[in-house]
Amino acid sequence: MIDHALDTPFSFKVKNTASDCAARRGRLVTGHGAIETPVFMPVGTVGTVKAVTFESVWETGARIILGNTYHLYLRPGHELVQRMGGLHRFQGWDGALLTDSAGFQVFSLGDLNKITEDGVEFRSHLDGSKHFFSPEVSMEAQLNLGSDIVMAFDECAAYGVSRQEVEAALGRTTRWLARCKDVFGGREFREGWERVLFGIMQGGVHEDLRRQSAAEIVDLDLPGYAVGGLSVGEPTSAMREMTELAAGLLPEEKPRYLMGVGFPDDIVAGVEAGIDMFDCVLPTRMARTGTVLTRDGRLVVKNLEFSEDSRPIDEECGCPVCARHSRGYIRHLFKANEILGCTLATMHNLFFYQELMAGIRNAIEEGKFKAHAAEVTRRWQEGEKNRLEGVQKRTPGGRKKRA
Amino acid sequence: MIDHALDTPFSFKVKNTASDCAARRGRLVTGHGAIETPVFMPVGTVGTVKAVTFESVWETGARIILGNTYHLYLRPGHELVQRMGGLHRFQGWDGALLTDSAGFQVFSLGDLNKITEDGVEFRSHLDGSKHFFSPEVSMEAQLNLGSDIVMAFDECAAYGVSRQEVEAALGRTTRWLARCKDVFGGREFREGWERVLFGIMQGGVHEDLRRQSAAEIVDLDLPGYAVGGLSVGEPTSAMREMTELAAGLLPEEKPRYLMGVGFPDDIVAGVEAGIDMFDCVLPTRMARTGTVLTRDGRLVVKNLEFSEDSRPIDEECGCPVCARHSRGYIRHLFKANEILGCTLATMHNLFFYQELMAGIRNAIEEGKFKAHAAEVTRRWQEGEKNRLEGVQKRTPGGRKKRA
Repeated sequence: MIDHALDTPFSFKVKNTASDCAARRGRLVTGHGAIETPVFMPVGTVGTVKAVTFESVWETGARIILGNTYHLYLRPGHELVQRMGGLHRFQGWDGALLTDSAGFQVFSLGDLNKITEDGVEFRSHLDGSKHFFSPEVSMEAQLNLGSDIVMAFDECAAYGVSRQEVEAALGRTTRWLARCKDVFGGREFREGWERVLFGIMQGGVHEDLRRQSAAEIVDLDLPGYAVGGLSVGEPTSAMREMTELAAGLLPEEKPRYLMGVGFPDDIVAGVEAGIDMFDCVLPTRMARTGTVLTRDGRLVVKNLEFSEDSRPIDEECGCPVCARHSRGYIRHLFKANEILGCTLATMHNLFFYQELMAGIRNAIEEGKFKAHAAEVTRRWQEGEKNRLEGVQKRTPGGRKKRA
Repeated sequence: MIDHALDTPFSFKVKNTASDCAARRGRLVTGHGAIETPVFMPVGTVGTVKAVTFESVWETGARIILGNTYHLYLRPGHELVQRMGGLHRFQGWDGALLTDSAGFQVFSLGDLNKITEDGVEFRSHLDGSKHFFSPEVSMEAQLNLGSDIVMAFDECAAYGVSRQEVEAALGRTTRWLARCKDVFGGREFREGWERVLFGIMQGGVHEDLRRQSAAEIVDLDLPGYAVGGLSVGEPTSAMREMTELAAGLLPEEKPRYLMGVGFPDDIVAGVEAGIDMFDCVLPTRMARTGTVLTRDGRLVVKNLEFSEDSRPIDEECGCPVCARHSRGYIRHLFKANEILGCTLATMHNLFFYQELMAGIRNAIEEGKFKAHAAEVTRRWQEGEKNRLEGVQKRTPGGRKKRA
């Protein structure tokens, strides 16, 4: 499984750029292997990409995954992970690791959080215990976890709050980023591999605030930048518009990461705007509720209509699940509450995203990205439209009925 | 994964027999591959070996698994499985399949069962619906499932019931076996592969009843025989004694299958008595509760004491879980209720049983079985003794405390 040299310094190189849009084909090199971009990073919340083995994650083609500092901080604790040799070794993942800063979770999962300039006091979603997170705590935790890419501790304003609140969050995000950088200077070689810090842009759906945030974080000259605060409830059109704006404000020579996005058509739009990296819980979370992805929209495979369907989830898919198992079998597993249902659906969905990205990378290389993007988007959106119409047809009044 | 020819007729051949006990090394050939014996068959209850993919089951070395007719009859139904191409194709397992008859489950899981000469009326453990199982229904269901080895519909008397009840169950078991044989003659080539019927011996812990049962079922001249009605609550010494007696009463040239047994020392004792085939839910069921097996007894890996244990589950184990993951990591997965905990523990436990059997087969071939059996038994039993003493030591009064 290992194909990396730990002493390789972090680097990013754009290999091709589309002539008719901002899409680009690149290569990210970390101490735990090289990653072809645009890339989708599966989410490995609490030291596991839920329901699948790391061998399976590797088999899907993934070479970088995301770990959640918030979850690992609470359980089993970053010091324990450090004593067990760091997160790569603890969970048995030889590929690259990006850890988020816990910023998003302390705001969205932690109850009763209290924000000051210093940091955030919050209560654990597990047992209500009180904790304090700050840029310094987040950096310490992520350095203990030993990820290749460390994310800045930011404040993500919820969609719909006042412009004033978005502005305040933006300001803290910049000041906190400077404190994050103070902890280890943006890039540092530790315990055998280089860790790099990515800054995060905020600013909600306000163009001028996005510009301000971009200017402030770019000024800190970090090895990579993320676009945060999107896919948090805003309309798709606003998300697309902000993504395009944001990507254009970030340096060309550095990797751009759109956090928490999204559906296949969102990803394609992100790539078109010049984004290099994506992560989303969508493929793994949907899988565990019995929903699988196809080129023509999602399929609620646990539904009755699939009970004797002998076709694979997606007839164009090259994954081992589609090679071996039918929709009818996977439906049966969900109805019988069998763990394997979650496992197979997750394997397929992760593979689906890796195939999506491989198709995108290939299209950029061949100079056919725009046409490819349009086709992926058309099929996905038509499939989703048909699915919703089918649901409406089956349930008079248009309300979605439980299977 | 496939390495078999569907048109191969069923056969069994003893290759070596130990000079100082009844242990034997053999080969079972089915339409879905050859199986080296003595063999352990993982249990795939409802169309899945719980918590693991069939690729993983294959990787452990298993070439035959058991399917539960009772569970599949209720969900998704044997007719549906048949319409989906049979159980091999439905679940995506290319190896051999043995199905039980549902006899054991309708007695132990079905509530309010009512036994007549005709069959058993019982209520589903899932929804209370009323069903009727008979030798004919069991054969029809198993032929629809399409297993390579079909088990007779028998009545397993519970341990502790009167001799009269054991006798009555034995009588029905023999008469039902004759009806099972009437359905398809004991062996039949259907839809591309041969299906064979195994008879089941009953008789509880009564030597004369075991002799009577053996004589009656052997008289029906079937391709293989099972020893039923053991490991149902009787003392280990009675189980061992009955196994030895039972194995000796069955024809030498036919495979002998000890149903539902057991721990490593039970398996070794079964082999010593001349048993060729075993199945048990123990490795899979224990795994899902956070208990894993080692050569030196079981390990409740979810316990606090393992939270920073960086050793693999079993340092002598060659499985992919032990190669990649620590006890501490697996403990973390169980504490965080992560599916992967069940998956990794199951993979290890299944691998452990396959290694156990490979060691036994090797020892028979090398003429060293007795010494090997003694060593396996000594280490297992000493480990278990130490574990129990450890539990008692940690919990004053000797009561087992929850971790």
